[in-house]
Amino acid sequence: MTMAAQKWLKLAVAKRAALSELIPPEYRIPKHLLPPNTQLDVTPFPTESGWFSQKELEITSSTSPVILEKIASRTWTAEEVTRAFCKRAAAAHQLTNCLSEIFFSEAVESAKALDEHLLNTGKTIGPLHGLPISLKDNFNIVGKDSCVGFASLVNQPAPYNATLVELLEKAGAVRYCKTNVPTAMMIAESVNNVLGRTVNPLNRKLTSGGSSGGESALIAFGGSPLGVGTDIGGSLRIPAACTGIFALRPSFGRFTTQRCRSGLAGQEAVMSVNGPMARTLKDVVLFAKTVVDSKPWLHDPKCLPIPWRLVEPKKKLKLAVLWNDGMVVPTPPVKRALKETVEKLKNAGHVIVEWNPVLHPQLVDLLGRMFVADGGKSVRALLAPTDEPFRPEMEAYQQASELGVHAMWQLHLERSELQKKYLDQWLSYEDLDAILAPTTPFASVQNGLFKHVGYTGVYNIVDYAAVSFPSGVFADKDKDKAIANHTPLSDTCKEIHSEYDAILVHGMPVSLQLVAKRLEEEKVLAMTEMVLRAISLPLKARL
Amino acid sequence: MTMAAQKWLKLAVAKRAALSELIPPEYRIPKHLLPPNTQLDVTPFPTESGWFSQKELEITSSTSPVILEKIASRTWTAEEVTRAFCKRAAAAHQLTNCLSEIFFSEAVESAKALDEHLLNTGKTIGPLHGLPISLKDNFNIVGKDSCVGFASLVNQPAPYNATLVELLEKAGAVRYCKTNVPTAMMIAESVNNVLGRTVNPLNRKLTSGGSSGGESALIAFGGSPLGVGTDIGGSLRIPAACTGIFALRPSFGRFTTQRCRSGLAGQEAVMSVNGPMARTLKDVVLFAKTVVDSKPWLHDPKCLPIPWRLVEPKKKLKLAVLWNDGMVVPTPPVKRALKETVEKLKNAGHVIVEWNPVLHPQLVDLLGRMFVADGGKSVRALLAPTDEPFRPEMEAYQQASELGVHAMWQLHLERSELQKKYLDQWLSYEDLDAILAPTTPFASVQNGLFKHVGYTGVYNIVDYAAVSFPSGVFADKDKDKAIANHTPLSDTCKEIHSEYDAILVHGMPVSLQLVAKRLEEEKVLAMTEMVLRAISLPLKARL
Repeated sequence: MTMAAQKWLKLAVAKRAALSELIPPEYRIPKHLLPPNTQLDVTPFPTESGWFSQKELEITSSTSPVILEKIASRTWTAEEVTRAFCKRAAAAHQLTNCLSEIFFSEAVESAKALDEHLLNTGKTIGPLHGLPISLKDNFNIVGKDSCVGFASLVNQPAPYNATLVELLEKAGAVRYCKTNVPTAMMIAESVNNVLGRTVNPLNRKLTSGGSSGGESALIAFGGSPLGVGTDIGGSLRIPAACTGIFALRPSFGRFTTQRCRSGLAGQEAVMSVNGPMARTLKDVVLFAKTVVDSKPWLHDPKCLPIPWRLVEPKKKLKLAVLWNDGMVVPTPPVKRALKETVEKLKNAGHVIVEWNPVLHPQLVDLLGRMFVADGGKSVRALLAPTDEPFRPEMEAYQQASELGVHAMWQLHLERSELQKKYLDQWLSYEDLDAILAPTTPFASVQNGLFKHVGYTGVYNIVDYAAVSFPSGVFADKDKDKAIANHTPLSDTCKEIHSEYDAILVHGMPVSLQLVAKRLEEEKVLAMTEMVLRAISLPLKARL
Repeated sequence: MTMAAQKWLKLAVAKRAALSELIPPEYRIPKHLLPPNTQLDVTPFPTESGWFSQKELEITSSTSPVILEKIASRTWTAEEVTRAFCKRAAAAHQLTNCLSEIFFSEAVESAKALDEHLLNTGKTIGPLHGLPISLKDNFNIVGKDSCVGFASLVNQPAPYNATLVELLEKAGAVRYCKTNVPTAMMIAESVNNVLGRTVNPLNRKLTSGGSSGGESALIAFGGSPLGVGTDIGGSLRIPAACTGIFALRPSFGRFTTQRCRSGLAGQEAVMSVNGPMARTLKDVVLFAKTVVDSKPWLHDPKCLPIPWRLVEPKKKLKLAVLWNDGMVVPTPPVKRALKETVEKLKNAGHVIVEWNPVLHPQLVDLLGRMFVADGGKSVRALLAPTDEPFRPEMEAYQQASELGVHAMWQLHLERSELQKKYLDQWLSYEDLDAILAPTTPFASVQNGLFKHVGYTGVYNIVDYAAVSFPSGVFADKDKDKAIANHTPLSDTCKEIHSEYDAILVHGMPVSLQLVAKRLEEEKVLAMTEMVLRAISLPLKARL
């Protein structure tokens, strides 16, 4: 190994050690309780290990609205809530490697100050008073790294807070940790050279998805009641789907992305958005309404002055099903979940039509070209200072040639034309309310084998509001056998189905995606609630 | 002259001849009535020549709401209204060279059909039933050129209608002509190698501005009650100011720009917008409300689902005055107009503060770099097929080097940071309602001498809603003498003031700009009405 190669590795090793050090001794899982590496599903650990008190378990299994109510009514203190989530987050990290930054002691101090405020004034400071909220690594916080997987960004504490961080803090939220991401947040699993790989707490052989896969692992383990991720090609929805939690991908301009670290800074052909991730839809709605009510457009010039709107969807929805996207047939559990969900929706009286994926291959192809339009220069500039190698998943960035601005303008035209065609297709149905689609081809998939962000990425280009939700269907090795004589739609489709392992994903929750038009966040959330009712899934997803 | 050089010229000569031919004989000004070339102000021609009937004059001097009311009540037919405007537009063209496309006979046919519909059903087909609306050359109309000044685009009839054209037609508007622009719409005067130069009907030695300067000349002459232009650096507001009419520059996403010809197709770092131009504020409001009420977001995926909102501004506005932008001191008439307007606003009880232009030079510098980021390739590609030379005003495009996408992304970051700073500066005032600023440094200026789009261009970058309105002040050679011992703020400032000709611009209306925040179109229109009341200007501008 050369000296140069050691530069990034030294930083990485030191960063991991420093992160571990930030877990206080009382939150380190006692050795005798530590599940063996061979134990794949670690989600029973909090309830079964005996390491958590009943109260800690009660707090950390509550939804955000319940937590807020109990703090406001002084049934619980913000401090005890914060401590409980810090402990459970610490456990999550030790079992799945899901955190990137830890600041538990500051969190406890904030929580104490909130408790004092409530005690003194009798009032909460805002609608999120005392709620711990976890943040994806790219949310800048003064004094903390946002290394997004790059060694060169380690020990580069942020000089300012992301605007959303400020808004959440004003609303009373307590920040206590940030979560791991893939390099540049441009891989659909959460793995990087600095902090390594986050795994799925439901099955550690499987990925928790990416790029908000530190969040999804943390939340699915119960280490956070509400987290914030980002999404430029599926980065909220894919990890939500891999772990069976909820995520809202809003259209650009509803929530603020200002002063966050970007993997491809200045890239605007397709806009990254922020959104909430949680175990229940209620948490997601709470976040969305609270952020919009805080009028982010007064802080971020890119935010739209659209207040939170009351919507009342039709009683019977018209939904277009996307059975496959013309590139990849979903794996058997997803195929079955979609089929069963459609049946339940029909039974509930909703109208089901089909969506023709005719535009999807062009959209997905375009998305890939837009990401690498700078010839990978942005990524290379972050790898170079420490001689950090490209990860194999980032090969497209390593191989790409930079476009000139004129060629980029032609890509914009191509994208705008596809956006127009997609809207026209939508409007060709009378009164279509939403598209129901797989979120990914997988329930989840073995670490390293995630492929195809097409199901999500299409909606980044057209910028539609989408929710990924657990369908209530779980992969079943007996029901979900590999398709015999599978006729693949593409090479990727072939690979995915040849790698499909019914036994490995047995028991994993399967998620689907409900997609409304651009800037219809309120509507897509209200419709998701209707869909959940139709499929008789309790609002709380499997924890 | 080489064969190659003749190619564009031949096309240009033929296009001009064909355009002239489209004026029917009855709309050609009789030779004995034609004002001599030495007559600078041709606006008295309609009333003084005796060539127009009283009814034609009555129709063409009415506002859009009055015209619509009279057609709806069957006092006037759409046909006679259309014919009257066709005739006056034809006169405008003969005197100022303001049209680019003429389709009077189709317009009369449309008008007849509307009359028949009203007669048969007793109902108008929409809120613009029978109103002739003129369109800037870049609005595509099936079968018509949109050459935007390029010889290579002559005889390339559009295969589709611009989305706005369709929405206006559905609302009942009658289209009858398109108007001249500068090459690529990227010069602040309306001059190009194909159709030549549009001049100002108030003084033909002066420019009618650009790039919507065919519109402004036509409207100021009375040849259109309502026109639609576009604005990427001031192209609505500059021509409106040069001719003393009203224009609204909306934020991007309110009105649709879909399927229009762009001079820099695919350029998105700063977005071009469409907006109305007219002699009164009422026409502008009518257009804005009608277009938004037609829900353009159902047709154009880039439009925002923000309905037309009722706003009631505070009774006493807080306005920040921009005395100069730190680059160019306005010429004496504009300086005086701003001063007098501020006095009148104070007298009316409005609160006046000052705006520090500290960010303006950086914004203007950035705007220029964004326009030429493709190294002029887009323009060159349209010049090359006919060997058309670059116009001297386009030198920046000829000289520019193309950026790579990575460098472009850095420009985006620079722009986003300035947008943030501009908003922060705005919010540093408590409850600031608007900025009051010069629209340009000029009342108008001699053809060929327009310089500095800084006063308008800044608001394209931050994407704020702005109205240019006539201040009621007119340039006066005695009051507006050149500044003695002028201390220029820049070389451009020096040139502008050394070229200032108090006698030449004597009598020209002076316009100012009222600027609200992003997506505050309703508010900026309501505030303009308040400003007009304060300055005791009748709502109708000088015709």
